[in-house]
Amino acid sequence: MMDLDRIRADTPATARRAYLHNAGAALMPRTVVDTLKNHIDLEAEIGGYAAFRQEIGRCEAVYGSVARLINAKPEEIALVENATVAWQMAFYSLEFAPGDRILTAEAEYAANYVAFLQMAKRTGAVIDVVPSDPTGELDVAALERMIDHKVKLIAITWVPTNGGLANPAAVVGRIAKAHGIPYLLDACQAVGQMVVDVEALNVDMLSATGRKFLRGPRGTGFLYARKGFLDRMEPPVIDHYAAPWVARDRYELRPDARRFENWENNYAARLGLGAAVDYALEIGMEQIAARCLALSGRLRAGLAATGGVTLLDLGRTPSAIVSFNVDGIEAREVVRQALAAGIVIGASEPESTRIDSENRNLADTVRASPHYYNSEAEVDRLIDLCSGMRGKLHAAVPPTVI
Amino acid sequence: MMDLDRIRADTPATARRAYLHNAGAALMPRTVVDTLKNHIDLEAEIGGYAAFRQEIGRCEAVYGSVARLINAKPEEIALVENATVAWQMAFYSLEFAPGDRILTAEAEYAANYVAFLQMAKRTGAVIDVVPSDPTGELDVAALERMIDHKVKLIAITWVPTNGGLANPAAVVGRIAKAHGIPYLLDACQAVGQMVVDVEALNVDMLSATGRKFLRGPRGTGFLYARKGFLDRMEPPVIDHYAAPWVARDRYELRPDARRFENWENNYAARLGLGAAVDYALEIGMEQIAARCLALSGRLRAGLAATGGVTLLDLGRTPSAIVSFNVDGIEAREVVRQALAAGIVIGASEPESTRIDSENRNLADTVRASPHYYNSEAEVDRLIDLCSGMRGKLHAAVPPTVI
Repeated sequence: MMDLDRIRADTPATARRAYLHNAGAALMPRTVVDTLKNHIDLEAEIGGYAAFRQEIGRCEAVYGSVARLINAKPEEIALVENATVAWQMAFYSLEFAPGDRILTAEAEYAANYVAFLQMAKRTGAVIDVVPSDPTGELDVAALERMIDHKVKLIAITWVPTNGGLANPAAVVGRIAKAHGIPYLLDACQAVGQMVVDVEALNVDMLSATGRKFLRGPRGTGFLYARKGFLDRMEPPVIDHYAAPWVARDRYELRPDARRFENWENNYAARLGLGAAVDYALEIGMEQIAARCLALSGRLRAGLAATGGVTLLDLGRTPSAIVSFNVDGIEAREVVRQALAAGIVIGASEPESTRIDSENRNLADTVRASPHYYNSEAEVDRLIDLCSGMRGKLHAAVPPTVI
Repeated sequence: MMDLDRIRADTPATARRAYLHNAGAALMPRTVVDTLKNHIDLEAEIGGYAAFRQEIGRCEAVYGSVARLINAKPEEIALVENATVAWQMAFYSLEFAPGDRILTAEAEYAANYVAFLQMAKRTGAVIDVVPSDPTGELDVAALERMIDHKVKLIAITWVPTNGGLANPAAVVGRIAKAHGIPYLLDACQAVGQMVVDVEALNVDMLSATGRKFLRGPRGTGFLYARKGFLDRMEPPVIDHYAAPWVARDRYELRPDARRFENWENNYAARLGLGAAVDYALEIGMEQIAARCLALSGRLRAGLAATGGVTLLDLGRTPSAIVSFNVDGIEAREVVRQALAAGIVIGASEPESTRIDSENRNLADTVRASPHYYNSEAEVDRLIDLCSGMRGKLHAAVPPTVI
């Protein structure tokens, strides 16, 4: 059983605000904040290099923590600046020839899609979007039908930035594996809220961030690259850490996933990421996942029961990202009113998932993302607020017009 | 006149150690440390996104500070994770065809050289190393003779990681400009110890780090890309911040140097970089540069007068990086003994500047790098220590053997 009182005491700001913006950047628990600040103090005292050497054991242990979190091996992990860098390092490591096909999904994230477009321009590769099924998930039957020998990559976002969707990542993995097609999974919004097992997912590459559901510092992320797949990946850019200069005319790529890193790093942030992962593991990812589902389910049910709120979520088993609109009130205004009431939520723009947004004709949407450290009461406060907004809106309309 | 007492009070650790390792990572002044920690606290209190929005003015001002430091325009600055990322973003943005020549210098840094090698492998471009003149500087007459229509890039390190050298960067810039050849300058060890003026240097691209002579946080750096040159640079990797997804099948590169950034950043570190730059500007780069020269000159003179110390520095007007060996004592052991005496210095490996090291048959070398905040007494302590080491070494040898 989760000790919510202790967990909330570990994050003092929970006493002062209902923080439901974990899909943006979650609140860091105190252990993460202390880790960051302690390392900065150490750097200021003995210098950045000596501080790293003194903490090299803990810096090294971060690879083990991340590996444990996703059931990987430490040598399959690269610690990088954010999920985008992680994803880029994987994607741009692959070679494409004219006519090679990249399969992706309708709710693919903008960051990834522009990279597809650049690669298409550069190499003549083709982007094919797998349609969604009636629930809004990637249609796995359609995916199967689209596969041919020209498909050189399947790259999808597991939990898109909005829309509540959790794509059937493991089913896609089985299909990719059966056809021997490389599989790159953007798990930016999944890691930290769901149980992530790279073996069960059958992914070759998986990217994630520290600052969202993992509750780590901004400016942290990681890439998983499967050991057996690494030989097929030449990083798009290298330095002498990724690829030591072994002879005047020769470099040698590191044999592990650190070929995607470079020499210089923000070790305070990296240690903070490690503290965040350890904290999540200590609580237990199964427990966290169950509570994320419960709280987001409660929020969805409450909003659904509120007239004038339109839920915009997709898929069979939605994630902890709850997307909706309040009739007649712009998303930004809902966010603003929530903030005034001490509730932190966010808004998403259509440009971040352009294909899905165009298909569904979406404008800005409100995005609320509870996490295990939230209370039921906080979720209910947001429901009440949205319900009240509608009341106020209607009250403002002269009776004769209704 | 520099107020050394105040400056040293701003960096409390100077009271406890002689920190002469500024070419590694300098000690951060208190304003940098406070800036880092205050922003982390703010993130922990209101969340990472709200903290950024609250400090967006200060985050934006960092571009202005960096631009002022190097006489550039804010829109010519990209703030990135480190100098390597900055350099990579510039270098890999350029196109090379088979036979295109890249000119570099003998003391080029390993990080850059392996990237040349990767580009050569990828495109058939050729790396040509400009020889050094008898002082060890890049031979500008030789450079001129080597130029032909196949030269597509001149890329050198201004102040190499060791060897005390300051290459004639501005002369190289005039030559590059006269021939219309793109010029990429690695200023990682120059920024913060020398006056850097991108106009006077005639550079198209310049990369630098925060953690060395600028005294900023680890995990910070920047790229300067000249406004008129930017159109010729397509970043090797992009996300939707660098290149917004403007229509389903189209992205548009940002018109400014931020096309080399990505959406997510460590804003605490970025603000810390800004605080470091502002601190340097407040003291004044001319004053800083003069004192760096004075202290490194004092160190060189003192070591030169010490029998048994071999200075390994090159060039006409050496930088604040002093490289040497103590006869009969390995570099790492010198560093260790210095640390035991409360003096922080470093060592360099031959692999970091392989061509220079092979040409000069160098093993590991000791690297001491004073900065303006050091005192004359600290420099003298290192001289005395090295002098004493030699005495002890000789004392340890039985008289009959001498």
